[in-house]
Amino acid sequence: MSDENFQLSRRALLGSATVGTLGALVAGAAGPEVAAGVSPLRHGGTIPFFASHQSGIATPPQLHLALATFDLTDGASRSEIASMLNDWTAASAAMTKGQPAPGPTTPQAAPSDPGQALDLGPSGLTVTLGVGRDFLAHPSVGGTPALIAQLPSFAGDQLDPVRSGGGLCIQACAQDPQVAFHAVHVLTRLGSGTTTLRSLQRGFLPDSAKGGAPRNLMGFKDGSRNLNVDDPSQMNHSVWTKGASLPRWMQGGTFMVARRIRIRMERWAESPLIEQEQTVGRRRDSGAPLSGQAERDRPDFAALDTQGSPVIPLTAHLRLASPEANDGIRILRRGYSFSDGIDPATGELDAGIMFLAFMADPLRQFVPLQQKLVAKDALHDYLVHTASSVFAIPQGLQAGQSWGSQLLA
Amino acid sequence: MSDENFQLSRRALLGSATVGTLGALVAGAAGPEVAAGVSPLRHGGTIPFFASHQSGIATPPQLHLALATFDLTDGASRSEIASMLNDWTAASAAMTKGQPAPGPTTPQAAPSDPGQALDLGPSGLTVTLGVGRDFLAHPSVGGTPALIAQLPSFAGDQLDPVRSGGGLCIQACAQDPQVAFHAVHVLTRLGSGTTTLRSLQRGFLPDSAKGGAPRNLMGFKDGSRNLNVDDPSQMNHSVWTKGASLPRWMQGGTFMVARRIRIRMERWAESPLIEQEQTVGRRRDSGAPLSGQAERDRPDFAALDTQGSPVIPLTAHLRLASPEANDGIRILRRGYSFSDGIDPATGELDAGIMFLAFMADPLRQFVPLQQKLVAKDALHDYLVHTASSVFAIPQGLQAGQSWGSQLLA
Repeated sequence: MSDENFQLSRRALLGSATVGTLGALVAGAAGPEVAAGVSPLRHGGTIPFFASHQSGIATPPQLHLALATFDLTDGASRSEIASMLNDWTAASAAMTKGQPAPGPTTPQAAPSDPGQALDLGPSGLTVTLGVGRDFLAHPSVGGTPALIAQLPSFAGDQLDPVRSGGGLCIQACAQDPQVAFHAVHVLTRLGSGTTTLRSLQRGFLPDSAKGGAPRNLMGFKDGSRNLNVDDPSQMNHSVWTKGASLPRWMQGGTFMVARRIRIRMERWAESPLIEQEQTVGRRRDSGAPLSGQAERDRPDFAALDTQGSPVIPLTAHLRLASPEANDGIRILRRGYSFSDGIDPATGELDAGIMFLAFMADPLRQFVPLQQKLVAKDALHDYLVHTASSVFAIPQGLQAGQSWGSQLLA
Repeated sequence: MSDENFQLSRRALLGSATVGTLGALVAGAAGPEVAAGVSPLRHGGTIPFFASHQSGIATPPQLHLALATFDLTDGASRSEIASMLNDWTAASAAMTKGQPAPGPTTPQAAPSDPGQALDLGPSGLTVTLGVGRDFLAHPSVGGTPALIAQLPSFAGDQLDPVRSGGGLCIQACAQDPQVAFHAVHVLTRLGSGTTTLRSLQRGFLPDSAKGGAPRNLMGFKDGSRNLNVDDPSQMNHSVWTKGASLPRWMQGGTFMVARRIRIRMERWAESPLIEQEQTVGRRRDSGAPLSGQAERDRPDFAALDTQGSPVIPLTAHLRLASPEANDGIRILRRGYSFSDGIDPATGELDAGIMFLAFMADPLRQFVPLQQKLVAKDALHDYLVHTASSVFAIPQGLQAGQSWGSQLLA
């Protein structure tokens, strides 16, 4: 065992070095591209809950996701909702430090914490709150639902209404799936009477020792050109919200677009490798753009082959989703893979991409990107979008603040 | 980051030391109990595929499970089935070494391996094959279905027929969920035309630094008194099959009983802690039997409190499931937790225990145990069994052997 554990330790250190190096580099126009925050970190440490922006956004993706949505009960009063959100704050702050949800635990009472995460430590847990149109439209909240964009329907959408939308959203991410599950379970119990659980989507990322973007369930590295979370100018331009038209709690917030995307696993698997690579615009094994040699090579969209055809096809996902083809539009993707048994309609694996992306303006960022992909992207033929949501992600909390007073002061 | 990674490395070494110590101890009647193999190991190493017993049985549980069942197509011929099983053997042997599924990969052909596990290494993968009654009853197989016990129905069972039974079963376990998923996907593709995927259940275990049995989703340590896989006499007596009434491929095999057990999460969470502990027979936080101080303390079923009542209640799970109360019956449990979204019937989390247990004789081991638990166990009120299967697990393969020739020679 000791050899194997030393190997793990070596891999952990290599992982750390890779992340550090990426974070220290600055993207140069001629050099390799930088996309920090795309490699899942191996750590069991504590990620601060109280911060100017909520954690779980610029945080390098942990290995496991539990994304829950909740409906507010019709008759919930403003003070009940505020009290519940304050309870969620206290519990989230405790759990992210590896502590049980606060409350009296006596032998004669139901335990305040259901106990699944005892012994597991913080495990890199982040708990990120989002609010949906149904929250802002609730009579006891009296917010402005128009703050949150309604996405148009896109060709091919097959959206499950229960998995889409909702009043509140909790994105719990951790290195251990049980820690993420526990966080959702605690908040579900604390919300009882004021909210009901609407949906729960779990997700995972592979833990590659080799660094780079994780592979998705199509077998391709995904996110190699993601926005660089270590570059404040990119984050301020593309992710964080600000401006007089937004409420105070959205100064330094963001919006999350969540799309559950089923992969047509067998159609994809039966495609020749060259067709897969032309569809994505990258080599499968190395992740290199078809115009380059290494994953981080900047794609050369002007490159032509000996026949005079573009090396990166005009219908390749890499080209169509690129900032170069979209007036510089960037979004911060932070998605996970999912595997939910079998799709009864097809008998195939119900597996795919839980696309999560953070951006300042979904109508100006996600919608034009997705419209272009639906119209032209060769990859779109292999995907079915089965749920769609937009949530407003409030700014971070300062120590002593809580979501109830932030949102319902 | 480096502090956190060093912490992980230290935890990995502690985990290794704990396992080693447990494995080296011998259970003494007066000393602490030994239950090796219950702590998930942190390793990314290779577990040999070719061995006298299949791996994934006595193997300490990896962190992630993908349990798939398959139906044989009605018209499949004996040679098609054998050929498919030989393909499964070659692919499983390769994948457990961290290699892609074998086959030609040319740009013009669909890749022989769908690629999700590239870069991930062996990740402790085990692939364990089971055969069900439907396999043995298939006209092209012509086996003896009576080899495999049919379990009686138990009070409270709410079994989903699709999640239950099937012709073939693959238990893929790995430290990385994507590696386990990939193994099932590869075998599903290789079986196409001869088998169809019937069900896929994923599961996980928490990765506790503190050692001992992992906590289940009831918040209690589960498996502290499990059979000791390092004790050949226990394994030969309770797990491995042998005897003239069994076919050659079951000499050194075993049977797997798989039960999907949903926890009534809210009923349980609302119970007072003392009631939970009396129901289980252990303290929640330490895992100690109510008669003792530490998780490994041998339960004292004769101990009485000052009122003269048993310290471990007569209805406690610990007592009713114990070998002491069951003529020494032991089974090797190797279960996982599952979380599959929301149960539409109740609106609660659809979460629980994917109970997997290996034993030499389900009718003499599992059935009387389960009948006793259903009749008397206080824990049973909090559980709903939603699927049930029994599979025969063939003996291990020697290098050069394959499942096709083993089962259909």
